[in-house]
Amino acid sequence: CSITASLVGNTYVFLPETDEHMLAFAEKVFASETKGEGVRDEISMFEVQDDCPILQQEMAHHLHTDEDTDKRWKWIPTMVSPFALPLNPLFVCPSSSSSSSPSVVRRDSRSVAPSLYLLPDFQRVAIIGDYASGVTMDDFELSCKGMYRALAIREKYMRLAFQRFPLTSSQYLREIEGEPFKPEHTVKPVFTSPPKKGEDPFNTKCLPENLSWVARMKDGVIYTYKDAAAADQHKPIENMPAPDYITFIDDMNFLIALIAQGPTKTYTHRRLKFLMSKFNVHEMLNEMEEMKELKLNPHRDFYNCRKVDTHIHAAACMNQKHLLRFIKKSYQIDADRVVQNIKGKDVTMKELFANLNLHPYDLTVDSLDVHAGRQTFQRFDKFNAKYNPVGASELRDLYMKTENYIDGEYFARIIKEVASDLEDARYQYAEPRLSIYGCNPNEWTKLSGWFNKHRVFSPQLKWMIQVPRIYDIFRGRNFVPHFGKMLENIFLPVFQATIEPHANPELSIFLKHVTGFDSVDDESKHSGHMFCTKSPKPEEWNIVKNPSYTYYIYYMYANITMINQLRKARGMNTFQFRPHCGEAGAVTHLLASFMTADNISHGLNLKKSPVLQYLYFLAQIPIAMSPLSNNSLFLEYAKSPLLEFLKKGLIVSLSTDDPMQFHYTREPLMEEYAIAAQVFKLSTCDMCEISRNSVLQSGLSDEEKTHFLGSDYLKEGPEGNDIRKTNVAQIRMAYRYETLCYELNLIKEGLKTE
Amino acid sequence: CSITASLVGNTYVFLPETDEHMLAFAEKVFASETKGEGVRDEISMFEVQDDCPILQQEMAHHLHTDEDTDKRWKWIPTMVSPFALPLNPLFVCPSSSSSSSPSVVRRDSRSVAPSLYLLPDFQRVAIIGDYASGVTMDDFELSCKGMYRALAIREKYMRLAFQRFPLTSSQYLREIEGEPFKPEHTVKPVFTSPPKKGEDPFNTKCLPENLSWVARMKDGVIYTYKDAAAADQHKPIENMPAPDYITFIDDMNFLIALIAQGPTKTYTHRRLKFLMSKFNVHEMLNEMEEMKELKLNPHRDFYNCRKVDTHIHAAACMNQKHLLRFIKKSYQIDADRVVQNIKGKDVTMKELFANLNLHPYDLTVDSLDVHAGRQTFQRFDKFNAKYNPVGASELRDLYMKTENYIDGEYFARIIKEVASDLEDARYQYAEPRLSIYGCNPNEWTKLSGWFNKHRVFSPQLKWMIQVPRIYDIFRGRNFVPHFGKMLENIFLPVFQATIEPHANPELSIFLKHVTGFDSVDDESKHSGHMFCTKSPKPEEWNIVKNPSYTYYIYYMYANITMINQLRKARGMNTFQFRPHCGEAGAVTHLLASFMTADNISHGLNLKKSPVLQYLYFLAQIPIAMSPLSNNSLFLEYAKSPLLEFLKKGLIVSLSTDDPMQFHYTREPLMEEYAIAAQVFKLSTCDMCEISRNSVLQSGLSDEEKTHFLGSDYLKEGPEGNDIRKTNVAQIRMAYRYETLCYELNLIKEGLKTE
Repeated sequence: CSITASLVGNTYVFLPETDEHMLAFAEKVFASETKGEGVRDEISMFEVQDDCPILQQEMAHHLHTDEDTDKRWKWIPTMVSPFALPLNPLFVCPSSSSSSSPSVVRRDSRSVAPSLYLLPDFQRVAIIGDYASGVTMDDFELSCKGMYRALAIREKYMRLAFQRFPLTSSQYLREIEGEPFKPEHTVKPVFTSPPKKGEDPFNTKCLPENLSWVARMKDGVIYTYKDAAAADQHKPIENMPAPDYITFIDDMNFLIALIAQGPTKTYTHRRLKFLMSKFNVHEMLNEMEEMKELKLNPHRDFYNCRKVDTHIHAAACMNQKHLLRFIKKSYQIDADRVVQNIKGKDVTMKELFANLNLHPYDLTVDSLDVHAGRQTFQRFDKFNAKYNPVGASELRDLYMKTENYIDGEYFARIIKEVASDLEDARYQYAEPRLSIYGCNPNEWTKLSGWFNKHRVFSPQLKWMIQVPRIYDIFRGRNFVPHFGKMLENIFLPVFQATIEPHANPELSIFLKHVTGFDSVDDESKHSGHMFCTKSPKPEEWNIVKNPSYTYYIYYMYANITMINQLRKARGMNTFQFRPHCGEAGAVTHLLASFMTADNISHGLNLKKSPVLQYLYFLAQIPIAMSPLSNNSLFLEYAKSPLLEFLKKGLIVSLSTDDPMQFHYTREPLMEEYAIAAQVFKLSTCDMCEISRNSVLQSGLSDEEKTHFLGSDYLKEGPEGNDIRKTNVAQIRMAYRYETLCYELNLIKEGLKTE
Repeated sequence: CSITASLVGNTYVFLPETDEHMLAFAEKVFASETKGEGVRDEISMFEVQDDCPILQQEMAHHLHTDEDTDKRWKWIPTMVSPFALPLNPLFVCPSSSSSSSPSVVRRDSRSVAPSLYLLPDFQRVAIIGDYASGVTMDDFELSCKGMYRALAIREKYMRLAFQRFPLTSSQYLREIEGEPFKPEHTVKPVFTSPPKKGEDPFNTKCLPENLSWVARMKDGVIYTYKDAAAADQHKPIENMPAPDYITFIDDMNFLIALIAQGPTKTYTHRRLKFLMSKFNVHEMLNEMEEMKELKLNPHRDFYNCRKVDTHIHAAACMNQKHLLRFIKKSYQIDADRVVQNIKGKDVTMKELFANLNLHPYDLTVDSLDVHAGRQTFQRFDKFNAKYNPVGASELRDLYMKTENYIDGEYFARIIKEVASDLEDARYQYAEPRLSIYGCNPNEWTKLSGWFNKHRVFSPQLKWMIQVPRIYDIFRGRNFVPHFGKMLENIFLPVFQATIEPHANPELSIFLKHVTGFDSVDDESKHSGHMFCTKSPKPEEWNIVKNPSYTYYIYYMYANITMINQLRKARGMNTFQFRPHCGEAGAVTHLLASFMTADNISHGLNLKKSPVLQYLYFLAQIPIAMSPLSNNSLFLEYAKSPLLEFLKKGLIVSLSTDDPMQFHYTREPLMEEYAIAAQVFKLSTCDMCEISRNSVLQSGLSDEEKTHFLGSDYLKEGPEGNDIRKTNVAQIRMAYRYETLCYELNLIKEGLKTE
């Protein structure tokens, strides 16, 4: 019953070539195949490739066995600085370095509340020897001087606008200046507390009383005056200083020169390379110890630590399948509802779809065609068209606009469904952007009317206002006479509602739930204009050409600064400035945001400027990154600088940007985290650190941040971390804090020699 | 109210360095920054990079406008071969090439059922000129001869075991042989139909009657005999031919020689490069047309086309969060339940956890520690340890075993929860593997007892049996006397249940729902043994050393062949052989599977042998790939050959392998697809093609495949595709079919010249 016999009936032709010669050859091949195995890039039991992390860990493990690891765990009272250990003689923390001890206040406040935190011992990376990082002493001093001034510039503008600047960096700046650090000088943004149980977030009764103040624009910036007479004389209310235009441009020019300065470029490039290597060594030595902390941390893991989608556009916050379902469902219920009025003629939903030659029953994700694919890569213009379902702007109007014949009812419902999904997921929050264009002064009225009418509120959502940089289009169509009018349309209603809340109750309520402003558009478009002292003032900018990115940024910042001062004075919440920045275009965009923004979205182009990248590190400016969005638009996933930034210690978070266009699953933010974890092989500690960053970066209120991160979340370093809530290892926190202090201390040392 | 003034009080030190000189420099830098923009790797409106796909598409689009595209759509009756167009003079489809027209039968059957399918016109890539693909005529002929014989070898072994071989390839083989193609000679596997409405899948009444036949092993292969006397004389029942051992080794040696043969390596390497380029050009020219087909296809999109998780291990089929929740829940309910008996002493769940120094309330995903991370890369040994929650084999026993003190109740419940999630997701199916070790003859009794007792059935699940290649361990512990006993333990109970279903009702029911066998273990372990005519027979293999991969594969194949013939004769379902293959280790593994396996899992190492890769293409052998699993174990995601294989036309599907270890989200299979789509920038058509492949590869029954893919799914080429069900463009199907025919025809031409 051999096979050859049984198949003879089918008359297969088998060439009977098998002989001893061939067998011998086969054996030879087999032998070489077997022998060659170890040499190739295959896996064998005897060999481990260089990039195999296990080797590194086992080496680390070898250094101390599990038994004495347990002994090394100890409770350290926070009075004793955990890093001022003899292990690391060069490390100087801000409080212990100067005999005049400017940080006594801080230490005192600590000893008043003697909280304890657990910091396991870990292996530190120390550099013994020269401070100058391999550059000449002159270059080192020059660079440190530049870094110092750059940080001081940012600190100034952050303080002016009630935005954030790290305490640690401030302390070092004061030490350099020989001034005492006064914690009472620090500012922070004010966010609206979440409604208490039973409290109505739309209740207008608790609004502050109306004032008779007057808000008026001068040179593109809105000031507040006691009355019209003071306004006529331009005598604004005191203690509400505007940024000085000339100084700002001076500061900017200084920074432009700095980021192009050879020695500083070399110095920062070397520091960044060092930061990268240092983290790699830290990881190699301490990865298992960090993991051990997390394993011993009860209840909390990556899944139930809080994460905020720090950058998402409301109009694309649902995924494509969700939108499809919603359209189908709405048609089932509302087919005969009037949803449009074209030239006085009512159009029902049925007719609308019929006009488009569509029946929702046949619609699929493919025909909806809102997903970005290979088609959109490097084509922002094509991408924008993807906002129109089935390529029909009528459907965008109907489903994704706040202002239409049905008063944005569908859009509100979709957003509430997204919020309800987030509530189900429990640990996820989002900061959707709604648009104000500045084309018309009553945009705010309509938007806040929509918000109040449909009660678009959820504890999972914090609202942001995005302002597209499309003055040129409005001017071209003669919607606005000059750029100043656009700014006025954007900001004046906010001033008015702040001064007279009861005259603008709906807007006042809405503004309570708005946490910041975003500036959006294709950054790769270039205006050709350079912002300088000779630039026309906004009221004089009446040409059709768009002003530059920096010009936009400056005037948004200046007006937000003025609003924040006014609102702070009135006991209201303030706004953060969180522009899209560095997604594409010139590096100078990142410079403008360095001066003005609390935090940014994207930041890809920090890759191109070591000076700015190092400054973003020193100032710990949060960056909401969206590698999946970039993958469809500007930069392939594997080339994303996310991992590099994270390793160096930049404050990165993960965000979705536009789930409708980029994501496949029901949980877009988890998809974003999962893909980053897989592609970059992130550890749990990495992922939880990113999650923690996202909460800190967000506009969540003090109460919420306390609840999600721990009561000391405003403190920096390991004492600000509550591992039980964040699941970030204290070793990681200490590494980050000590690394930042080390770099800041270098600058201090560089300035000492003068 | 300038900023400088307002901050004087804080005595900031600002270095007043800004002067005209610096401004000029800043302007210069700004200008160069602006100017340089277009030259760098940034995006500008005027420039598109080479890898920007939009350019290519617009070129393609330019060739015919939308209007005449519509005209080009037409209904083509299937009688007219859509590819026998003058456009492509060199293309020869199997039926029209020979004047003796051996495929009349097939054409006839078509004209009997004149189904219509829509094939839009598309742009074809044709090569005009020499057939020999740039190698010498001698080499070309030599290669074609080798390819032909290799395909004929596979066809023979597939037919013998009721496994699949493509009709198209068979037709070409018959044409080469000058024999008529007889569709009645084709075989296909038999799968159990899904239970009809109201039918109980565990009903034992419909089992066939018992026979008095006898099954007995001889030389490692089990034969069926009429009675014990026939068995003693080794006179097996007729028409159940076993593979001939000597012939098999001859065939194998021929193939080993072939894959190492210089000219054939060169030839196949060139063909594969050509296939890659051809697909790239096809994509460039037809991507938009394919997308148009999908957009016009109502109801169906990627989300609701059926996909099968073709490779998943039951013990890791839940994700880590799911397992965590299950453990916590079970403790809440069953803390006082006895779950273990150690040396006669009952142990409750409470005690079990107490012994482990654990409280489930504190457990987190981190302390569970079942996720593969950087630690497991290139360390399969570390990976296997991840199967133990909290590193405790006791918990693996309790939650992930079919055989324990609670009779595998928890494991059954977890699997049913996974199945219920799949039922909710509606369009997803999975083929979990359960283990039979061959250590003990009653393993099947216990496993089928578990299956029946807990009624572990779901329409979403098709079961597979995995056999770990760990004879060496069993022999080392003296569990088995020789390798033959292990084979007997694995296969004899299946023969017995097939002969006497009523004597083994539970096993017989279970086997109805089993669709195939898998062979699993770390392929990078090397035995050092070479399978040849001098190898000891299994009953003689009594050393502790493990036999080679090929030895295992041959004896599994031989026994599955014998079972299938017996079961087919009894009107029962047959089993497919679907081993893990080519995940690591020697290339010869892929050769063994080429001869024996219906389809394989992994296949990464096809990268290393162009001859085998080309043969896998010609024979259209499905490959279940798990890039996320590979990313954690053997190969980084970006280096996965998935995209390359897909483009060349190999039949790839996506599978999760071990969601517990690798995945983050609640929908592991969707995560797998989403990440592949993002990283490889797959189009919807690509993803739906992979989904379709997964259904074809799977052990889903004929009824289910008909329902999911269309009634003509067994036909090859576009006529076998029902776009309304699969959402795969007909253009893509035609491209695939024509490309396969073209390559097969080349071989025919190469053999003609002899």
